[in-house]
Amino acid sequence: MNNFTFYSPTYFVFGRGTENEAGKYVSRFGGTKVLIHYGGGSVKKSGLLDRVKTSLDGAGIDYVELGGVMPNPRSGLVYEGIDLCRQEKVDFILAVGGGSTIDSSKAIAAGVLYDGDFWDYYSTDLQVTEALPVGTILTIAAAGSEGSQGSVITHEDGMLKRSTNSDAIRPVFSILNPELTFTLPPEQTANGVADIMAHVFERYFTNTKEVEVTDRLCEAILLTMIKESPKVMENPSDYGARANIMWAGMVAHNNLCGVGRDQDWSSHDMEHELSALYDVAHGAGLAVMFPAWMKYVMKHDINRFAQIAVRVWGCHMDYQNPEVTALEGIKKLEEFWRSLGLPITFAELGAKEEDIPFMVKNIGLKEGESMGSFVPLYNEDLEKIYRLAL
Amino acid sequence: MNNFTFYSPTYFVFGRGTENEAGKYVSRFGGTKVLIHYGGGSVKKSGLLDRVKTSLDGAGIDYVELGGVMPNPRSGLVYEGIDLCRQEKVDFILAVGGGSTIDSSKAIAAGVLYDGDFWDYYSTDLQVTEALPVGTILTIAAAGSEGSQGSVITHEDGMLKRSTNSDAIRPVFSILNPELTFTLPPEQTANGVADIMAHVFERYFTNTKEVEVTDRLCEAILLTMIKESPKVMENPSDYGARANIMWAGMVAHNNLCGVGRDQDWSSHDMEHELSALYDVAHGAGLAVMFPAWMKYVMKHDINRFAQIAVRVWGCHMDYQNPEVTALEGIKKLEEFWRSLGLPITFAELGAKEEDIPFMVKNIGLKEGESMGSFVPLYNEDLEKIYRLAL
Repeated sequence: MNNFTFYSPTYFVFGRGTENEAGKYVSRFGGTKVLIHYGGGSVKKSGLLDRVKTSLDGAGIDYVELGGVMPNPRSGLVYEGIDLCRQEKVDFILAVGGGSTIDSSKAIAAGVLYDGDFWDYYSTDLQVTEALPVGTILTIAAAGSEGSQGSVITHEDGMLKRSTNSDAIRPVFSILNPELTFTLPPEQTANGVADIMAHVFERYFTNTKEVEVTDRLCEAILLTMIKESPKVMENPSDYGARANIMWAGMVAHNNLCGVGRDQDWSSHDMEHELSALYDVAHGAGLAVMFPAWMKYVMKHDINRFAQIAVRVWGCHMDYQNPEVTALEGIKKLEEFWRSLGLPITFAELGAKEEDIPFMVKNIGLKEGESMGSFVPLYNEDLEKIYRLAL
Repeated sequence: MNNFTFYSPTYFVFGRGTENEAGKYVSRFGGTKVLIHYGGGSVKKSGLLDRVKTSLDGAGIDYVELGGVMPNPRSGLVYEGIDLCRQEKVDFILAVGGGSTIDSSKAIAAGVLYDGDFWDYYSTDLQVTEALPVGTILTIAAAGSEGSQGSVITHEDGMLKRSTNSDAIRPVFSILNPELTFTLPPEQTANGVADIMAHVFERYFTNTKEVEVTDRLCEAILLTMIKESPKVMENPSDYGARANIMWAGMVAHNNLCGVGRDQDWSSHDMEHELSALYDVAHGAGLAVMFPAWMKYVMKHDINRFAQIAVRVWGCHMDYQNPEVTALEGIKKLEEFWRSLGLPITFAELGAKEEDIPFMVKNIGLKEGESMGSFVPLYNEDLEKIYRLAL
């Protein structure tokens, strides 16, 4: 196990009706003038926005609002949010939505207190050291941003997708009401499932030895997802299943499952090229990339792949040919994702073979340069992995 | 799943040599004048105390010290600590030791800022709302106090053992270096294992439905303990095994595994009578009480006991007689604890059958009153459970 630090100071408020406590928690964490930040019309249509405002009114908290966050949130709205917050002397950002809205809120929160261009935090090594407090009311279980220190923004100038990480932008509180996810379209629910499972895989495949406790925690989240996800596809209003998935989504990405071990985010980076080129959902792209990546790298540590096949997918260990077991595990993953309606090939995603060289080039590895820690990947490896996903 | 809140804001610093960063973290969390609080001579003999002082010196932090914390920490030393802190204008408590030292530190931290008797927090419904910041340097994996909101103190006036719970006494940082646990005597290591596993059992046996994610997280901790514990009994300096156990010990008790579900702490309370009467270690007493409690209550939800037998102990499900599987799981637990040198009967603990009525009486249930949530227990049940442990 590697040395590590772990810090997850967010106050989580979980359960039915908890969005009505927004005012109380904004107050507790020092907010007096709030920017309510959200995406499209669904938070209006569902009445959620009204309930949140009622709660803020009840706590005597003033607010302004800014909607319009898109999937893969953009810099333009962040700049707008920063200006609005300064103008209105906002001291607290309340994100009402999913990962995109939360990431956009984190960017605004950091930008308001920074003299330069907020994009410096995303495009250079500059670390966010102070930010307005951010609270969240989560409406989709997927990105884990409600409990993470990360934020991903796409700059409209060049459509560059970049991230920043800092404890200073961890939400001070996050309200998680599984009921708010009942109305998600099946496709978005399934994409969220893939995103959550991918967050675990990115931590699971490691060369770090003696990490049983985090292995087991990773497996706990995967086993939960495998049991609960089919239930919500069958019945979107299954509270128990939605609740288990929502909490698993937070635990999958606040890094409890990833401390003390090297992580490998190659599949994640390879997916970014898919979503950039075809404007597909991150979760759908991950569902395509992960099985391909796994097949390509599994020989590097066949026992680790056999372990996940046995412990998570319930395969029987083939002691003579562990590779058979390892492959069976990957096949089970593909079958599982397909059963949720997720794509697992380029064709299903609408991606094209002829674009592969362009995507490889776009990842931007220089000659002799590699990415990934479990298995270092060079340009020729990336090309082969994309081809495995055809 | 029940509605819940979860808050674990402690900054964890984990790994080799991390005690040498004590000064840095005290500074970061605002300490300028520290009380170093510890137990017996082992932290001196091992050189740990000197290393901590060197680290504080290096950060320009002044300190006073107070040793002498005993297992089942006493009120007398807490009063002494409170006086010392006020006299020396201490603004930060640094606990160097195990659960007892940390619990004593939490009591002092709360007492210093309170005008009345600190015992009010333990003996009445009064909640701690402010306390000096507490940092910890953990030397034994067991109690989980390094990441919890609890503190247990025994008042010398009547030897009453009472607890208090508040977010205000959660440590601001905890330093966990597995190397510091290498020198623990085997008995203390084993008692710690029992304590950690008991923290999971107390959360696992619940009537709350649809709690798959917390079930799986509980099982993850237990599976880790089962794999790693024999290794440290064999080789006390096995860093990887010590590390896995140490992190599991924190996760087992910061309530991540227990949120959203009713918990049952009856065995814990029944054990307190054993340790009070025979001055045995809490972990050893738990090793005796838990199998007895399990046997007594298992029929209430035989499938939950079969589940843990299959998922955690690797038993094969007897679909015709799940009770056989359930019992097999309990037997595996007994065998496991015995393999670590833990007692699992009254006789092995040195407890006496004739004291049972006295212990039952001491628990203090009134006529018609019960304790526990999984299965409510009345006085006659308590007596029968103690007898099952003979």
